Amino acid sequence: MAPSTFPTEPPDPRTVFDRLDREAERREADGLTRRPPVRSAEEDVLDLAGNDYLGLTNHRAVTDAAASAARRWGAGAGGSRLVTGTTELHTELEDELAEFCGTESALVFSSGYTANLAVITALSGRNSLLVSDSHNHASLIDGCRLSRAEVRVVAHLDTRAAEAELVRRPHEGLLLTESVFSVDGDTAPLREALRVCRANGAALLIDDAHGLGVLGEGGAGALAAFDMRTAPDVVATVTLSKALGAQGGAVLGPRRVIEHLRQSARTFVFDTGLAPAAAAGALAALRVLWGDPRRCSRVREVAEGLYRELVRRGVPATRPGAAVLGIPVGEANTAVDWAAECLRRGVRVGCFRPPSVPDGSARLRLTARADLPPGRITEVAAVLAASAPEEVLG
Amino acid sequence: MAPSTFPTEPPDPRTVFDRLDREAERREADGLTRRPPVRSAEEDVLDLAGNDYLGLTNHRAVTDAAASAARRWGAGAGGSRLVTGTTELHTELEDELAEFCGTESALVFSSGYTANLAVITALSGRNSLLVSDSHNHASLIDGCRLSRAEVRVVAHLDTRAAEAELVRRPHEGLLLTESVFSVDGDTAPLREALRVCRANGAALLIDDAHGLGVLGEGGAGALAAFDMRTAPDVVATVTLSKALGAQGGAVLGPRRVIEHLRQSARTFVFDTGLAPAAAAGALAALRVLWGDPRRCSRVREVAEGLYRELVRRGVPATRPGAAVLGIPVGEANTAVDWAAECLRRGVRVGCFRPPSVPDGSARLRLTARADLPPGRITEVAAVLAASAPEEVLG
Ligand SMILES: Cc1ncc(COP(=O)(O)O)c(C=O)c1O
Ligand SMILES: Cc1ncc(COP(=O)(O)O)c(C=O)c1O
Repeated sequence: MAPSTFPTEPPDPRTVFDRLDREAERREADGLTRRPPVRSAEEDVLDLAGNDYLGLTNHRAVTDAAASAARRWGAGAGGSRLVTGTTELHTELEDELAEFCGTESALVFSSGYTANLAVITALSGRNSLLVSDSHNHASLIDGCRLSRAEVRVVAHLDTRAAEAELVRRPHEGLLLTESVFSVDGDTAPLREALRVCRANGAALLIDDAHGLGVLGEGGAGALAAFDMRTAPDVVATVTLSKALGAQGGAVLGPRRVIEHLRQSARTFVFDTGLAPAAAAGALAALRVLWGDPRRCSRVREVAEGLYRELVRRGVPATRPGAAVLGIPVGEANTAVDWAAECLRRGVRVGCFRPPSVPDGSARLRLTARADLPPGRITEVAAVLAASAPEEVLG
Repeated sequence: MAPSTFPTEPPDPRTVFDRLDREAERREADGLTRRPPVRSAEEDVLDLAGNDYLGLTNHRAVTDAAASAARRWGAGAGGSRLVTGTTELHTELEDELAEFCGTESALVFSSGYTANLAVITALSGRNSLLVSDSHNHASLIDGCRLSRAEVRVVAHLDTRAAEAELVRRPHEGLLLTESVFSVDGDTAPLREALRVCRANGAALLIDDAHGLGVLGEGGAGALAAFDMRTAPDVVATVTLSKALGAQGGAVLGPRRVIEHLRQSARTFVFDTGLAPAAAAGALAALRVLWGDPRRCSRVREVAEGLYRELVRRGVPATRPGAAVLGIPVGEANTAVDWAAECLRRGVRVGCFRPPSVPDGSARLRLTARADLPPGRITEVAAVLAASAPEEVLG
């Protein structure tokens, strides 16, 4: 099988990869090259850049469950969920997720990203109209791009604009929004959204990635918070990688919708099932939260506390609807320097810059954590204020 | 936040979800409803439906590594690889994968599916031409759909047809193929493919999901088997969920390509990093294989043995280029019944039917495993032959 000589003429130097060098130079010149930090297990940093809202990623019950599942079931699911990749662990997780969130049914995917691709493509056809908030996450955007539907992007949080689109195509619409937007942490007017959907026979898809574990009684998420758990025309996606501290995603909703995804969603049918350790970790996290709902109220208190302390010091944080706080900065380099200075002082915060956000709108992002002691809230606010660039404190 | 009454008018019964019932009825009438089996940890079945080619999913070193990683690093990566989701484990895995496969560089994703989406979208633009084999996997097809490039699907294994497309758009082409096709296990003429790419300044993307661990010296994959490891115009994707027994995917290739993906691929930037347990499991599997390259030759012998024994008994298996054997059947119900009968006799085989494969081309799929004792090869062939529908034995 292995040939002994290289097959053909030398490669043409002007291949499609050639433009990559020019792009890299441009990125470097614009100060937009990313150099992702590599975490060590021993680092002594307060991480407010991740999405471990409830402090469950390293919770003993969660890591124990993940470790035992790897031993009991193996390191992987072994195949597609339809073939050999559905273990009892997967169905247990699905049953408990549905019960916790109050929906009829749930289906687990290998990531939140693929869950979003699944739900959008499987629930839309050539005649559908997808109406999508302009701040929606990349996975929702990619779901729209993958669909064969007509796609309309509407201004952020603009329910009126969404309605103006839905009204054009009665009974064909699907309105897509996040419950809590991932970068700035602001929340969508979901009741209004459902009203305009119903007025036009449309369905509502809520990406509750940042709502599960934080919104609603006991952290049951946006559907619980907005009393939409059993609505026949609402579907939610969640991820197991944020409040539940593991990896994976899920779609929650009416049984017939979930069954349709199981039968036909491409990222369900043609993707290897979620690794047993991740499924077991998420399931254990769900049970911890179930048994200790104060984690959910606590993370909201911490978010409010961070917000108050930051604003008091002149840092223009956005008011958190859940656990995420955004801080608009503007220039990419300013944001990068600020985040670096915070890290030097022991606090890791997220830094978003183009192309992840539009030009000139770089920002920091902080996440509240249920396990942050009260004393550290003021400490964090002080670190951010002390290292803030002057033009931001304004 | 939680309103006390349901927000709006009752839902319109004619929502977009309504058509789902009709689709479900049609699927049921056509006998195409899938009822995925739920595996228990204790089941006493020989699984030849999964992709655990080297028997590493439950290898002690692999499950131990996965379990310790969950304990040491937590159940999840905590965030995007660019923010807080890159641990030392991720970079170690990337370095060793690149070294094992012989490429300059590697980048790990949360799945093979998202790795394929990443590489196709990040390496193509509006001016690109994507030429894709008609049997390519759903994740490659979705990558093409997500791209903004011109996409041409060419007949299976038809290098001439691919050339006829590439020649139209010199220096803009990307040819996409699997090394070992996932359903039938046949292999692509990669040397020919590279020749036509080079003649036209195109690049070659090889999905080596079913080649890693099976093809090439010691299982180093298709790039090694075809002497393309350091080719500047070739990129490979692999998955960590098959021969490596875990979950996740990776892209392998020239440094500038990998760096470009790290900076800009959407499923890298906007997806949570691979869970530490999966990364550690895959890394341990890689090391087991490195230390024991006979696993790779063994799986090929088992595949050859299965093929010989099946054909000897009149079962029309396809000749395996690696570890996958396909058996064309035709009618969906016939294939389903055959697979069910095999399972009753203790052997689980895969069953592919529409819409996963075209109408009237349902098939069984068997995978060879390095840990199958020689005696069981004839046993498996006997089970398949004894339960075969008459029209297939022909
Ligand atoms: C709003 C939103 N949706 C979906 C996702 C994707 O989830 P995952 O990272 O689990 O794939 C994320 C985060 O990554 C997100 O912020
Ligand atoms: C050829 C091919 N590419 C990509 C994938 C996707 O890999 P994963 O299941 O790890 O996401 C698969 C299998 O699922 C496959 O067979």
